[in-house]
Amino acid sequence: MKKNRLEAFSDGVLAIVITIMVLELKVPHEARLEALWPIFPVFLSYVLSFVYVGIYWNNHHHLFQVAKRVSAGVLWTNMHLLFWLTLFPFCTAWLGENHWMPMPAAVYGFVLLMAAIAYALLQRAILANEGKQSLLGQALGSDWKGKLSPVFYLIAIPLCFWNPWVSMSLYTLVALMWVIPDRRIERVLDLHEAEARLRDGE
Amino acid sequence: MKKNRLEAFSDGVLAIVITIMVLELKVPHEARLEALWPIFPVFLSYVLSFVYVGIYWNNHHHLFQVAKRVSAGVLWTNMHLLFWLTLFPFCTAWLGENHWMPMPAAVYGFVLLMAAIAYALLQRAILANEGKQSLLGQALGSDWKGKLSPVFYLIAIPLCFWNPWVSMSLYTLVALMWVIPDRRIERVLDLHEAEARLRDGE
Amino acid sequence: MKKNRLEAFSDGVLAIVITIMVLELKVPHEARLEALWPIFPVFLSYVLSFVYVGIYWNNHHHLFQVAKRVSAGVLWTNMHLLFWLTLFPFCTAWLGENHWMPMPAAVYGFVLLMAAIAYALLQRAILANEGKQSLLGQALGSDWKGKLSPVFYLIAIPLCFWNPWVSMSLYTLVALMWVIPDRRIERVLDLHEAEARLRDGE
Amino acid sequence: MKKNRLEAFSDGVLAIVITIMVLELKVPHEARLEALWPIFPVFLSYVLSFVYVGIYWNNHHHLFQVAKRVSAGVLWTNMHLLFWLTLFPFCTAWLGENHWMPMPAAVYGFVLLMAAIAYALLQRAILANEGKQSLLGQALGSDWKGKLSPVFYLIAIPLCFWNPWVSMSLYTLVALMWVIPDRRIERVLDLHEAEARLRDGE
Repeated sequence: MKKNRLEAFSDGVLAIVITIMVLELKVPHEARLEALWPIFPVFLSYVLSFVYVGIYWNNHHHLFQVAKRVSAGVLWTNMHLLFWLTLFPFCTAWLGENHWMPMPAAVYGFVLLMAAIAYALLQRAILANEGKQSLLGQALGSDWKGKLSPVFYLIAIPLCFWNPWVSMSLYTLVALMWVIPDRRIERVLDLHEAEARLRDGE
Repeated sequence: MKKNRLEAFSDGVLAIVITIMVLELKVPHEARLEALWPIFPVFLSYVLSFVYVGIYWNNHHHLFQVAKRVSAGVLWTNMHLLFWLTLFPFCTAWLGENHWMPMPAAVYGFVLLMAAIAYALLQRAILANEGKQSLLGQALGSDWKGKLSPVFYLIAIPLCFWNPWVSMSLYTLVALMWVIPDRRIERVLDLHEAEARLRDGE
Repeated sequence: MKKNRLEAFSDGVLAIVITIMVLELKVPHEARLEALWPIFPVFLSYVLSFVYVGIYWNNHHHLFQVAKRVSAGVLWTNMHLLFWLTLFPFCTAWLGENHWMPMPAAVYGFVLLMAAIAYALLQRAILANEGKQSLLGQALGSDWKGKLSPVFYLIAIPLCFWNPWVSMSLYTLVALMWVIPDRRIERVLDLHEAEARLRDGE
Repeated sequence: MKKNRLEAFSDGVLAIVITIMVLELKVPHEARLEALWPIFPVFLSYVLSFVYVGIYWNNHHHLFQVAKRVSAGVLWTNMHLLFWLTLFPFCTAWLGENHWMPMPAAVYGFVLLMAAIAYALLQRAILANEGKQSLLGQALGSDWKGKLSPVFYLIAIPLCFWNPWVSMSLYTLVALMWVIPDRRIERVLDLHEAEARLRDGE
């Protein structure tokens, strides 16, 4: 029962975060199509953030499906994750309003990085309850996506000051990596993992 | 259990979309009844969008009642539908603020069209899981409403540049088509479908 | 299961309505206590509306506890009720910003009246499904509060143009009538109802 | 079942309160890092309020886990608690916008105090239903945190007019007292309580 309420609260926060971002699409006063151009970068940022929140909801959903117990540590690491996700509307709006300038793009990347770290901490807190041999431990495997994403953000953040479009492309690439089921890559990695496990005698 | 959380998240987003639209009814500074007139088109747009979100919630509710499994495809087609629905507050406000001018009316119709397509994709993703012979397959039948609505939108969008009131009437007509139980029409169409099925040997 | 989702959606809308109203408490730029005075009428209106939404949530909760089936009629009368309740933030803000002037007070009363009518229609739709002999039919009894409230609003609305404070007191009186358990009054009325039922041979 | 819906409604309100606060982080128009400095106090206030709402959600969650019945008293004391919590976004924004000046800091403390009192009333209402010998009665024990917090607020509020930073530190201290599991302190106090109970012959 405990788990249900944590899920419901997280669902509520994520649903509001995803919907509040659209409030930053300021309604233009003119009725011409050209009036929509200035808000186009805001719209693009909105799409990217929408996909990111969707990914977090999706992963959160899967994570708690295999989780059995909710400890105090899980409650607060979950709150910590929600904290960084509530900053998405602010970062998205700043990024969009300034047409993808270096500093807002870097701050956007920083919040993506912190959310990724918060998610990893939440995952670790749940794993500590469930045990490495648990369903979750097996489902995660080497968690290459979870480990690769922060590396991409760390590369993308300094690149913002050289060319923010390159950084934005990297952020988008990470999002696509999570959305696309990528069976081929996963099959290869699954094999790789299976071999690694055999080697480690697991 | 999976299904429950997807429903809860979608309910959350739809509840926020429906309530955020009312924030676009800017409170007039004067205390006279006449002060409400300038926001009357915004109010009318709000009513139409409220009814549309109500219809989507209603249909979403029915769709998932017969769905049994939630695949990755269902999760992301559902996210895609929610994306277009979150754009309702923006379009409604732009339409209302410009007193139903051609371009905002066309963009409003475009978002209605994209939401209808997104709903059809979600339906297809669920149907792919359940099978055509399933309860859903039977409940949908020929799905004449789902097929007719995009046609109406496609006719209404270009008509905006001739007379946006005609287009708005068409949008309203589609909404009414979904709200009114229309037993007579449905009975006729049910018969038609029954005959068609017999002919096709289903 | 159907019922659960309708409750969840209504809970979502009511939770957002109640929280969105507080956004109308515009943060003053000065840090002195006097800076809070201009928003004091907005605050008072907020308190009254908060109590009203609380009453509606409370009654909605009780109503659906005894309801067993959710028909299309119940779905749409519920949507209709939610529509009028989403107008609460707008009316509350207009009333507060104009320091309880006649017209905003009358419009506030009108929305209260429409919400009361919408609630009665929802109750009737549920009762039509359940039957008068059902648990709900018995629990409602003569429903004197539900019948008296619209009368009070109808008296209060024209009085706004004479003295809005009298009308606001009437609105508050109706709210108190619902909040206070009033055992004595209810006991008398229960007796009255019991006698009436005996007379009618129920 | 009753309990579930009260929890869902409260979760909804708390999720919206926590997310609405971030709307007060006004997006700066410039793209430089320095443009974020003026909103830094707003951000700090947001973090503190986020933690407070998190604590209230956490405690609310635990409280209702041991509660079995939901009476009218519980419904309305819960509404009363939610009322004070919905004022958090306003107070947080006023505090942040005025860079932690005395009066906003005092009003912030007053709302914290009222929320703490409301929570105590809710706890008492539930305890009245369950009985002192119940699981809740035992789980609460002497409830030293619940008793100490209002004392801290009462000390902190007048101190705002001397130095608001001292008051803000006290508010933060109370928050940390609830977040940190403080096993050592609790073990000591548990012993103290155990002794006290023995003395009182419980």
